[in-house]
Amino acid sequence: MSSKFIVIEGLEGAGKTTAIQTVVETLKQQGISDLVLTREPGGTPLAEKLRELIKQGVEGESLTDKAELLMLYAARVQLVENIIKPALAKGTWVIGDRHDLSSQAYQGGGRGIDQHLMASLRQAALGDFSPDLTLYLDVPPEVGLQRALERGELDRIEKESLDFFQRTRTRYLELMAKDDSIKKIDATQPLESVQDDIRHTLLAWLKNIG
Amino acid sequence: MSSKFIVIEGLEGAGKTTAIQTVVETLKQQGISDLVLTREPGGTPLAEKLRELIKQGVEGESLTDKAELLMLYAARVQLVENIIKPALAKGTWVIGDRHDLSSQAYQGGGRGIDQHLMASLRQAALGDFSPDLTLYLDVPPEVGLQRALERGELDRIEKESLDFFQRTRTRYLELMAKDDSIKKIDATQPLESVQDDIRHTLLAWLKNIG
Repeated sequence: MSSKFIVIEGLEGAGKTTAIQTVVETLKQQGISDLVLTREPGGTPLAEKLRELIKQGVEGESLTDKAELLMLYAARVQLVENIIKPALAKGTWVIGDRHDLSSQAYQGGGRGIDQHLMASLRQAALGDFSPDLTLYLDVPPEVGLQRALERGELDRIEKESLDFFQRTRTRYLELMAKDDSIKKIDATQPLESVQDDIRHTLLAWLKNIG
Repeated sequence: MSSKFIVIEGLEGAGKTTAIQTVVETLKQQGISDLVLTREPGGTPLAEKLRELIKQGVEGESLTDKAELLMLYAARVQLVENIIKPALAKGTWVIGDRHDLSSQAYQGGGRGIDQHLMASLRQAALGDFSPDLTLYLDVPPEVGLQRALERGELDRIEKESLDFFQRTRTRYLELMAKDDSIKKIDATQPLESVQDDIRHTLLAWLKNIG
């Protein structure tokens, strides 16, 4: 089987970190151990610098929605061209903590950036490149944010309103409904059930593409 | 007369800094003294951070052409929305050391990025916003680069090949031919003649719009 790009998506506090561990373990049990983990925004030295600017902003200056989006795509292009595509080309699987779907949901849904603009920017930056499988961990924002809050200090994006995250979740669900490569995991369940769902979803997908 | 956005463009070593001084002095002689100077990429705290990443790159990572372009537009959006538009709205004139034409020439011409991509990104980032007047200082690259070299250490972009700057100049000239708001100044002339040309071009334009 050729190497694949698998992405974990979801709101703050949806449980992405644990989900990634479950994905990695499941793949290893299937004999797939040549793996690289990425996160977005970030994952390259330059993209990590952009991540910091996006997450923390700059003192005394408001970050416009469009500049945020352009920086997210700049970071994504660096990661895709310098890390993800080369890894896939040499047979390494890539597990992504977020990818383009986050921008579609957060910037397109949450911030309400024009869909046509989102689509043309996506096409300009990434062309036809997209993940082979996306696991979307679904939680209501109030559940996820409570978990994120318990984890500590919130960053610039985590401080957005509940409405913002509700719009983001709605967009995630809309996009999922239109794309068979995105699988929904109910992340409000107890941890073990979430992990079971991830395992079963991943194994069924592997069997199907194998 | 409502406030205007005037941009100085040209290759490295074309004499933009001196040209800006001439523009400022000429405007002041005409009683226009409420001015703000900007530079691109840069001109806001966030845009200056992006400028540094673009100019210096990041150790051990190649900056892709697309990411460079996206970062340039992120910086430009911040400058336009946070500085240029608010200044113009309150009657302040804006004098820009480079603006969008630089991306069209360097990234579109020099790097050869697809024209359709350039146009859709420009539209997405800036919409219909554009300078009222652009003074393009034309020099052959070998002349400009020699001057830049004499000034000291070259940055990532100044280290490009002569071919790159030749393609950039060619694109500047092509775009100028299609746009009446771009005026060419022959910057190979002796400094005083260049300054005279700038003054005359600016005064003729002011008279025309006045």
